[in-house]
Parts: sequence; structure tokens; C-alpha cells
Amino acid sequence: MHISYEEELKLVEGILTAADFPVEDARTIARVISHSDFTGVYSHGLSRLTRYMRQIKAGSLNPHPNFQKVLDSGAVMVFDGDSGSGIVSLNKAYDELLPRARELGIAMATGRHNANIGCGSYYGWRAAADGMVALVTCNTYAFTSPFGGADRLIGTNPIILGVPGGESYPIVMDISTTFVAMGKIQAAEREGQAIPDTWAKDYDGAPTTDPSKAFSLSPIAGHKGYGLAVMVDVLSTMFSAACFGTDIGLFSKLEKENTGFCLILIDPSKFMPLADFKAEVDRYAHMMKDGRKAPGVNEIFLPGEIEFRKFEAMRQTGFEVSDKLASELTELSVTLGAIEEGADFGALVRHFAD
Amino acid sequence: MHISYEEELKLVEGILTAADFPVEDARTIARVISHSDFTGVYSHGLSRLTRYMRQIKAGSLNPHPNFQKVLDSGAVMVFDGDSGSGIVSLNKAYDELLPRARELGIAMATGRHNANIGCGSYYGWRAAADGMVALVTCNTYAFTSPFGGADRLIGTNPIILGVPGGESYPIVMDISTTFVAMGKIQAAEREGQAIPDTWAKDYDGAPTTDPSKAFSLSPIAGHKGYGLAVMVDVLSTMFSAACFGTDIGLFSKLEKENTGFCLILIDPSKFMPLADFKAEVDRYAHMMKDGRKAPGVNEIFLPGEIEFRKFEAMRQTGFEVSDKLASELTELSVTLGAIEEGADFGALVRHFAD
Repeated sequence: MHISYEEELKLVEGILTAADFPVEDARTIARVISHSDFTGVYSHGLSRLTRYMRQIKAGSLNPHPNFQKVLDSGAVMVFDGDSGSGIVSLNKAYDELLPRARELGIAMATGRHNANIGCGSYYGWRAAADGMVALVTCNTYAFTSPFGGADRLIGTNPIILGVPGGESYPIVMDISTTFVAMGKIQAAEREGQAIPDTWAKDYDGAPTTDPSKAFSLSPIAGHKGYGLAVMVDVLSTMFSAACFGTDIGLFSKLEKENTGFCLILIDPSKFMPLADFKAEVDRYAHMMKDGRKAPGVNEIFLPGEIEFRKFEAMRQTGFEVSDKLASELTELSVTLGAIEEGADFGALVRHFAD
Repeated sequence: MHISYEEELKLVEGILTAADFPVEDARTIARVISHSDFTGVYSHGLSRLTRYMRQIKAGSLNPHPNFQKVLDSGAVMVFDGDSGSGIVSLNKAYDELLPRARELGIAMATGRHNANIGCGSYYGWRAAADGMVALVTCNTYAFTSPFGGADRLIGTNPIILGVPGGESYPIVMDISTTFVAMGKIQAAEREGQAIPDTWAKDYDGAPTTDPSKAFSLSPIAGHKGYGLAVMVDVLSTMFSAACFGTDIGLFSKLEKENTGFCLILIDPSKFMPLADFKAEVDRYAHMMKDGRKAPGVNEIFLPGEIEFRKFEAMRQTGFEVSDKLASELTELSVTLGAIEEGADFGALVRHFAD
């Protein structure tokens, strides 16, 4: 069944409100989850809701956190998320940081004790829409090892950049510092396929092609990806006294994530008129796109361009919710008392859309 | 012949002063060049001096630039290097930015119209010694293509991080966003060896194993490395109106580099007592180093640790100047009138050491 962007927003808001999230926070999470599905990043979309509910039940995700600003000095701030959703914490930190960055040109907020921040590119889009450049990092459940190591001590540690464009799309990079996500390896295992030996290592730290033996994810580009992942750990945890390494809970046991984030906002209009900045971004984008193409390549894309186009296309078609996901969400809503037993997914969507 | 760290400092200062650099700038460059050789990064050490002289002769490197601060507002600054050494510009920008970062917690300086910044890890060491965290990027001569492209439009675009440690070494990452440097491919060509097809692409943009056909360097990790290189371009050029892509001169023609840099300094002591921050860095380093090792690995290193150890070891042994490099530098010094014809390298070193 296809649902529209607006329907997904209302659906997520409805389910989360039923799960006891404050309506404002439910709306924030709904925006990030819908962004994720409508840019094709299904791993952080509707499919995550069930896990969030299991985290709440396990006491590792707090729907009513005492979110606090614990430091505010000069151009820097620190926030404590009290084990709440990282999506809510990071968006609130953004709200507080934006005027400071506009005032001083650059400002930085870090956060501790947060669950997952959701789809990273959302924050790049948000900053670009505000005419700001954003640099965002967060650490995550530990799934990778230091270079030369075998223990899981470092997360998939994404790096996110958002840059406002003029006539071009904004430039938005959102990459993890591992080759692939664990989900991709699990998918290979379900299908009985071997994986490239660059993706993961076994328990002993040796490269493996057997997905069932994959224990730690390999960083991109060996020691360089390891270096970048360490950079993300430093920025995301050291300034906020957030957890890292073995201090972070285990994903498999639904333990508290307690991870940290770092948000740096830069205001181009402090440097030049915003229109001039955007014109330079356009000139850059055109220079890249207009260059000669490699064999078999029809078009060169700037980072994030494919997601902007996908979003535009999917706003037309809607997002296709699989039967499996539809019944999962319907069951969840029945359990939460949001809709009566026996209702189908279409009824659920209509229930919240009205 | 082995020369000591102090001898190399004096030697470089002497040659550059003879080449008409102001003595203070010559000293700054000498520190970065000596750092490079004594941490094992020979590509940015003494071997670079001849190229610098050729750049000066070609009018693309200005030894007497009118270095100017063109913007200073809140937590951000912009500098114009007037085609001077990027080493001098970036160090001067650092001097100016440091008190601002200490005052506000974070501050950012960008620069335009600069030649090469030299060995990147130097700036990470410098910040760590000042108890600061530094994030440095710069764009370079264009040697790589956008993902899917064939034209050379993007530099090797390094990312540098410096983090002060306590009992541990500082954490210093200094990575280019390409798989290898062009020098490594040229070395393979000289030795008649094939290169892995991940290193470079030919003129048409197809992967090649023939070093003589290598035209553009491949980014690390495909689209992820491309994204990181674009991030470096944005940070280093957009805020300072520095050159990018085809606006940058050609390396092969000794044209002006006119590249940009971005320096972000963060003061940990704005967030917590510096000793507490350093203790967390130590705890992090120990956690990584104490984990289980992969097969064949004796020790896990933090980013930059190997260079700190190499520096300590080479301070004992001195840096071995090859016969080829020794005569190159001696000839150069004769040409500059710094020493009389017929003198050998040993005499040159003693000449400046006294």
C-alpha cells in the first residue's frame, strides 16, 4: 500500500503519541522518519518504530526525558538527553544553537545520553533550508574495531554535511565510516550469500566472506576510515562526557545507547551575502556535473543529489509500505490502544490522517 | 649523511632566508619541513625545497606576500595569503584564531590564495600542544575526479585532526581523501610495476593498473571518499572565496595554487577542566589499545601514534639525507649565493648551524 508523505507524518505522530511521547516530540520524530523513507533510507524509516517501542519497554529509551542544557558559554553548548530519542535531542539542540551560530558565525553543540539520531541527512537538509552549513557527527552502538583490533569498540560513526545551494540542490553528505551497515550483512545471511571480504571481520579479527561469522564491520579505507571514526568519537563524546567503546550498551540486548553527538553550525552570511555563497555552490556543482564522464556514466551527481530527486519523485508516488511492515505497524497500534483489534493498515492510516 | 633536528631547522631557515623569505617566515616553514622529515613524511620535507624555489621563479609562490585579515567577526576570520606559502598563512591564521577560540570555545579561520600548507599533522601537533582540538582542511592542486567523472577537478584534499592527550600521545589524524598520492604512482612507474586498480583512473575515467596511464587519483571508498573530498572543498574554499576545480593552477606547469584552507579550533577547557578532558582521551586510547588484536597484530595504535614514536626515535638518530637530496640542496644553496661553489653538504649544514 502506498501512503503519502503527509499520511506518514500523521501515522508516526499518532503511533508515538499513543506510545506516550509528547506530541511535539512525536512530530519531530515523524519528520525525520518520513524524511528517511521518502529519501530511500528505509532502515531509519517506519521500519524502526517497532524497535523504538521495544527500547521503551526495555527501559533504554525514555519518551519523557528531562532534556537539559548543561553548558552554555560563548559559542558552545552541551545538552544532556536523559536517555531520550537522539532525534528529539539533536533537533532541540539545533533550535538552541541556530541563533548563536547566526550571531557568531560558528557555534557548536554536543550532547550526551541520547538514543539514535535517526536519518543523518535530515540535519543536512534542515541546515541547508536555513541557509546554514552543518557538520554533524554521532557515535553509535559499537560495531567496529580499531585498526588492527578484534573487539567491537567503535560505532558506524556517521559524518554529515549540509550546504545550502542556490539553483542547485543543497550539497548533503551522509556517510557512515564503515564499508556497509550490519543490516546488509544480515540480508546476505538470510539469502545464503557470501559477502566481499572487505565488509566485515570474524570474532578473531580476520576478514571473512561468511556473513554468519561477521562480527565486526570493517571501516572504509583501512586506517583512514579508522581515523575518521576516531574523529567522530572525539567530537561526539569528549566534549559532552558521552559514553564510548565498552561504556555503550549492546544493540542485541536493547541496552541504553547513551551515545553522543556533535553539531557545528556555520553561517555563510557572516562571510558574504548568502546569495553570493549560494552562487559559488552552484558554480561548484555545475563544474563537477559538466565535466567529462567515466565510461558508462550518464550523469555526475553531487553528494545528496540522488536523495533530493528521490524525495521529489516519491512525493508524487507515495511510499510503498510492504505487507509485512503494514501488519507490524497495525499490530503495534493495537497493542498501544491506538486502534481497535481487527482494523487493517488502511484504516490505521485513515484514523490518524483525519 | 644524518643531520639533527636542530641542524635541519637551521638549514631550511638559512636556505629560505637566502631565497628572500623574511626570517620569521623562514623559521615557520623550517619547523613544518623538519616536522615532516622527522615524522617520516619525506614528501613534505627537505625534498620540497627545490620545488618551492621553482615556484618562486615561476612567479607562483610569493616570498613577500601582503598577508591580510580580510574579515574578523564574532568567531570567524578570513585571511588572504597573496600567493604566499600556505605554511606561513595557516600558522599566522592559527596565531590570530587561538585567543578567539579560547574566548568563545570554538572559532574558525579560512584562507584563500595560498600555496601548499605542508605536512598536515604539524597543525594537529601544534593544537594538541596548546591544549586545543583542531580540525584542518585544505584543497590542493586538482588530481582527482568527482564520482563518475573523468576530469581532474578535486584535490587530494586532506582532513587533519589534533586532540591533546594526557599520559597518552595526542590523537592526530592526517589523511588525504585519495587512496594514494601521485608520488606513489610515479614511483611504481619508475620501477616498471603495475598498480592496483583501486589507485587511479586513466584519462577516460576507467580504472587502470598501468601507472603510465594513471590520470586521476581514485578517492578512498568510492562515493564516500568523494563526499569527504567535497566537504573539504566546501570548508576550504566557499567561506573564503578561494579557488576550486579548474580555477586552480596546474601542478605540472608550476602555476599558482591559490588554494584555500579551513582551520577550526575548539577549546576543551571551555567544556571541562583540561585535565579531565585529557584523562578521557587517555581512557579512550587505553580502551582501544587494550582490546583483542587481529591475527598477526602485536599492537593497536591510535591515529598519529606511529608518527610521535618515529619523531622520538629520529630525534636520537637524526634524519638521513640521501646523496641525491644532499647535492640537490647544496647546488640550490650555491645558486642562491648562500654558500660558495665547491662546498659539500656537510659544509652547508655546518655553515647554517653556526
